[in-house]
Amino acid sequence: MKKIILASASPRRKQLLEWAEIPFEVKVSNTSEWFPPGMPPEEVAVYIAREKAKAVQAETGIEEIIVAADTIVVLGDQNILGKPVHREDAVSMLLALAGEKHKVITGVVILQGDKEISFADTTEVEFHDLTEKQIEFYVDKYKPYDKAGAYAIQEWIGVVGIRSIKGDFYNVMGLPVSRVVREIQAISL
Amino acid sequence: MKKIILASASPRRKQLLEWAEIPFEVKVSNTSEWFPPGMPPEEVAVYIAREKAKAVQAETGIEEIIVAADTIVVLGDQNILGKPVHREDAVSMLLALAGEKHKVITGVVILQGDKEISFADTTEVEFHDLTEKQIEFYVDKYKPYDKAGAYAIQEWIGVVGIRSIKGDFYNVMGLPVSRVVREIQAISL
Repeated sequence: MKKIILASASPRRKQLLEWAEIPFEVKVSNTSEWFPPGMPPEEVAVYIAREKAKAVQAETGIEEIIVAADTIVVLGDQNILGKPVHREDAVSMLLALAGEKHKVITGVVILQGDKEISFADTTEVEFHDLTEKQIEFYVDKYKPYDKAGAYAIQEWIGVVGIRSIKGDFYNVMGLPVSRVVREIQAISL
Repeated sequence: MKKIILASASPRRKQLLEWAEIPFEVKVSNTSEWFPPGMPPEEVAVYIAREKAKAVQAETGIEEIIVAADTIVVLGDQNILGKPVHREDAVSMLLALAGEKHKVITGVVILQGDKEISFADTTEVEFHDLTEKQIEFYVDKYKPYDKAGAYAIQEWIGVVGIRSIKGDFYNVMGLPVSRVVREIQAISL
């Protein structure tokens, strides 16, 4: 398989591509995470991923396969939780998620020259009830400030606090790898 | 939390208890994995876990909390896939699982003195279609001979080959940790 360019600095996405044995290198361009107000959540994740992919493509060759992704957490129909900006923000996000179901949506954009494949993958996640003490323990020890919704499923709070999921587990970690691998093969043809 | 005894040599179960920050030590007694013919799969997993727990309890103090587990893979209603005994067995198990849904059932038995908590947790797993070449690559490289159903969800084949799951991801790794933590707290009361 041809080496791809991962347009993401996320250590979790890098780890997932390594586990999938996909050869890749990382190139990141700064983009804002702005999106048009009122846009549906699935479109938001793809919109932000596309911005990341296009910014990297502008700096690389036309033959390269570029993979970008953006993961958002959605509570209810419209309430998008981004990355928490401080401790109180992280604690209040986790209090809102505790005992509830939410959606994790990863938007993926794969570019090669003028070809684009894009999609959003959704996984439903259900948290157990969590006490404020458990939430504060997690936030203070794991500092989830780079994580949408203020948690990582593969950290303590995911291991002891998540009752069940429905969909792709690795999507919750930041990349729906099994589908990404198939789409990379499709765009290479 | 009081230290528990994990009656399992599985490195994956050890890792899950570490991630959950549960203090534990490992003690293992040999038991057969025999079960009465015709027993329903959920009961089989609990039956084998109970054998493991009781064997360890016979060698330890009455105050200790002992946790044992057994994970089985069930295709269709009754077809229990155990650990593959050789390469052809592993390949044929994975060919049977490819493109299909199956259940992963972990039976858990927690003992403290004459108190017992037992339950079975089920996760549904759906594989993508897999080619024989992909299956042989996985079996030859990852040698899944200690794994029920001949695969681990956290290895290459799980990352690129699983379409979705429904239930507890960590249950597929070998221990439904979030429920185990709650039940350990319950038995300690």
